[in-house]
Amino acid sequence: MLNVVIIGTGNLARHLFDSFSACPKIDIVQVVGRNSKALGYFEKSAATSTDFKNIADAAIFIIAVSDTAIPSVSKYLANKKGLVLHTSGSVSINALSGHHRYGVFYPLQTFTKDRKVAMDSVPFCLEAHDETDLDLLKKLTAQLSEKAYEVDSEQRKVLHLAAVFVNNFTNHLYHIGNEICNEKGLAFEILQPLIQETMAKTVQLTPYEAQTGPARRGDLETIEKHLEQLENSGYKEVYGILSKSIGKLYGNDIIPQHI
Amino acid sequence: MLNVVIIGTGNLARHLFDSFSACPKIDIVQVVGRNSKALGYFEKSAATSTDFKNIADAAIFIIAVSDTAIPSVSKYLANKKGLVLHTSGSVSINALSGHHRYGVFYPLQTFTKDRKVAMDSVPFCLEAHDETDLDLLKKLTAQLSEKAYEVDSEQRKVLHLAAVFVNNFTNHLYHIGNEICNEKGLAFEILQPLIQETMAKTVQLTPYEAQTGPARRGDLETIEKHLEQLENSGYKEVYGILSKSIGKLYGNDIIPQHI
Repeated sequence: MLNVVIIGTGNLARHLFDSFSACPKIDIVQVVGRNSKALGYFEKSAATSTDFKNIADAAIFIIAVSDTAIPSVSKYLANKKGLVLHTSGSVSINALSGHHRYGVFYPLQTFTKDRKVAMDSVPFCLEAHDETDLDLLKKLTAQLSEKAYEVDSEQRKVLHLAAVFVNNFTNHLYHIGNEICNEKGLAFEILQPLIQETMAKTVQLTPYEAQTGPARRGDLETIEKHLEQLENSGYKEVYGILSKSIGKLYGNDIIPQHI
Repeated sequence: MLNVVIIGTGNLARHLFDSFSACPKIDIVQVVGRNSKALGYFEKSAATSTDFKNIADAAIFIIAVSDTAIPSVSKYLANKKGLVLHTSGSVSINALSGHHRYGVFYPLQTFTKDRKVAMDSVPFCLEAHDETDLDLLKKLTAQLSEKAYEVDSEQRKVLHLAAVFVNNFTNHLYHIGNEICNEKGLAFEILQPLIQETMAKTVQLTPYEAQTGPARRGDLETIEKHLEQLENSGYKEVYGILSKSIGKLYGNDIIPQHI
């Protein structure tokens, strides 16, 4: 049995809590957070506390708080003998170097309130200061997911940046598509099979090979028409910069006139 | 039985040909194209011709050629009594107004050579000059797909533009994510569950609601760090413009210093 304490009450803490609760080999001994209302989510099936000075003992402490709160929260774990983990994509493992044993347990996924995520396919990026603790971290991960990757702090920072491109920015492109369709009375669902196929393609082809469209072809006429069509000046800028970037990648010199 | 002639030999022509060939109520009487080598794909199971002056008679003529070739190709169908359709997202129905009967049959999907697309979930955008022909167009579409939408030329132009955002530009973001990961020895597959979830979320939430990340939070510190981390000046520009656009949408004033 692995005893685990979770520090934090946000989306990630909830998702980890729900998934660990279903694992026969994991015992969540306590959930700790400042916000007593947010602790309500956990108190039916685990001990909870708002008192950081009385964190229970455990084999593993998982800090699932915002990046900026990691230093202040981790201080309360200074004397613990268990393995202290943070869950951040962009914070170095060294942020925890004041502890006896420490590491990183970063799930590369977007977690949304009220939306269940298939935890068994979430890639967990693992890093530990000590080889034995890496094994423990792998054991912990194996309870939840089939996908464990050894990733150092430098690589993790890159993954976090890549995630901004493929998740945050992609979602914004979906928003732009949605908005310009809605303005003409078209529902977003009409774009969904295309969105699905865009993603599915990358399993068979690299994104470099899969690229299509006017910027790849160097079709300036279509690009100019699209820029004229766009009314939102911010979206014109987005269109122009992305077309320029694609054009550059495929050797087409695209300098749209309308931005 | 519906007799169909396909004009064109590219990706879309191939996909339509393969799908129609499996329909018991469709008879492909001829495939016409300039490129005799490309016609080889079709000649096993249909009559083919490179001679545009001898196009067979049919109930429906589907022009699946590049946008710029539509006017020259459609001239050869001037005297036909069947329904003449083009398949373009950005060309108006009026490009075919010289014909007796005409319309648009636009599949909103990306078609790639050697990659099978589930045609039954492809949204077909339909437009016809005449109400009776719209019914015929719906009957044709129903052989292939469950998704038929009546879309006028103005709306179709918007869909084509939206498709550039959600398909072409999204794919480019995948490329950037892939490239910066590869440089640090990380495989693209590690990003795929995140890409999958980004898309899946939009079935439950609007992209506006689903947005997360530093630009939505107005977290300038993370944005500046990411911009420093990016070595490619073009990708810095893409990051900056998309962050600015997201920031604007959520009322955060983001003017990164590093671009």
